[in-house]
Amino acid sequence: MVVSPAFLAVDWGTTNRRVYAIDARGRVIDTARDDRGVMAIAPGGFDAEIAALRARWGSAPMLLAGMVGSTRGWQEAPYVPCPATINSLAANLVEVARDVAIVPGVCLPGPRGDVMRGEEVQLLGAVRAALAPDDALLCQPGTHCKWAEMHNGAIAGFRTTMTGEVYALLKQHSLLADYLAGEVAPSSAFNAGLDAARRRTLLGDLFAERANVLLDLCARNEVAAHVSGLLIGTDVLEQELEPGRSVHILADAALGSLYAAAVAAAGAHPVTIDSHAAFAAGITAIWSIRYA
Amino acid sequence: MVVSPAFLAVDWGTTNRRVYAIDARGRVIDTARDDRGVMAIAPGGFDAEIAALRARWGSAPMLLAGMVGSTRGWQEAPYVPCPATINSLAANLVEVARDVAIVPGVCLPGPRGDVMRGEEVQLLGAVRAALAPDDALLCQPGTHCKWAEMHNGAIAGFRTTMTGEVYALLKQHSLLADYLAGEVAPSSAFNAGLDAARRRTLLGDLFAERANVLLDLCARNEVAAHVSGLLIGTDVLEQELEPGRSVHILADAALGSLYAAAVAAAGAHPVTIDSHAAFAAGITAIWSIRYA
Repeated sequence: MVVSPAFLAVDWGTTNRRVYAIDARGRVIDTARDDRGVMAIAPGGFDAEIAALRARWGSAPMLLAGMVGSTRGWQEAPYVPCPATINSLAANLVEVARDVAIVPGVCLPGPRGDVMRGEEVQLLGAVRAALAPDDALLCQPGTHCKWAEMHNGAIAGFRTTMTGEVYALLKQHSLLADYLAGEVAPSSAFNAGLDAARRRTLLGDLFAERANVLLDLCARNEVAAHVSGLLIGTDVLEQELEPGRSVHILADAALGSLYAAAVAAAGAHPVTIDSHAAFAAGITAIWSIRYA
Repeated sequence: MVVSPAFLAVDWGTTNRRVYAIDARGRVIDTARDDRGVMAIAPGGFDAEIAALRARWGSAPMLLAGMVGSTRGWQEAPYVPCPATINSLAANLVEVARDVAIVPGVCLPGPRGDVMRGEEVQLLGAVRAALAPDDALLCQPGTHCKWAEMHNGAIAGFRTTMTGEVYALLKQHSLLADYLAGEVAPSSAFNAGLDAARRRTLLGDLFAERANVLLDLCARNEVAAHVSGLLIGTDVLEQELEPGRSVHILADAALGSLYAAAVAAAGAHPVTIDSHAAFAAGITAIWSIRYA
């Protein structure tokens, strides 16, 4: 590495971890991904993890985001309430070692509460980098999909859906597991799943997936795409999007294309944006307040 | 056992098995339940199972119902299409050994197909025993909940919901698993789950269960009842019941009381009936056609 990083950012999730070495202008100069998520770290093991990261990338300040700040992580970083901004995150960093701080998550207080950890950096970074306007609806698909209303550049409110986890449960442990092995791409079977979602009878339609294979009404190799369309379509319909409303989608290309198709099918306007660029912009903004 | 059975009926499911020894008047004179479901029987192992049952209960004819007739069971018994009756089941028994026959399942042909195996005996038996009228909506909660429209005493059509399996997946493998350990009974938390189901935002409401505990908006020990109410409430709402319509519920007392509360909350009229009596009546009617 020719250039030394100004700081290191770690997106430290439950099962995976991504490290970004970033220069003073917010450019990612190196990155690495591994499976050292917080569930893989034994109690008391975080100091050694930091030492290993330092051995590779040097002594620059480190900002950690994600489940590392949860009760299952290194140390709990209390949630910052909505409306949440880069400033409110930076003001509530939790220092866990010399020049190592955890970025707090964000909560939506009741009556129907919600929480996030890690996504807040991407959401605020997307606006900061002008990848999305200051007032926008952002969607981050994943194990737990976040739908965030940005207002004046702050996270004004959000809603989490369990879509990705439900799909994973079905794929790994359910009656439908045998049918859900493959990858899913936009296709006529996926679109048929989006159509089926309009019925709003998810519990019945999931069983019908199996029945339709047994009765030769559906090809086995189309079930994965159909179930994916059914779940993602249901997720999008639960948001009751206004017709034509823009939805900025932060995701990898594969999942982003599925959500874009579902948003379009629901009559809204999908805009896919680069989630890594958004994360880098958000974490650099926090670093510049605290350390620059 | 003083009286010899006229026949033996086995409700042979995926994980459990229940044996009924029944006399010529349809009275259950002995019963036993074990975990010798079809998944516990090695290929080629069914003859030995029958021999073991014969050693205990003698040489009377045996009728087997349930997943034993599926591709994962002993031998496939092709589905009988709706409208299905006691007569059409009896006419399509599959003899697998001397005086041992498998009762076929029932299918609803497309466009949106559905299948059942085992439940058909209870459904037709409920009508045969006058536990439900000839024209009725029957509900059999369980891993896969069946909603069956009976018309002139036949199974005219039905719909399966994956409600019980989804709850089990959440309880065993999900983010919510820690909260779902206990048993659920009708309670204010269960009723609050029924109310939440009216929003028809299941994917979002499931995640909110966790968030509400983290934010101290919901007590940990109320999550199981709330999630149960959310799922059972969603199941019932998917049926779009007419106001005041009677729903005859075939289930054990615990699950039956939860579905009865959900049906009442949806504005319909629950009637709980004895599922064991219904099974005995149905299987006796098939036996009397074939063997009596």
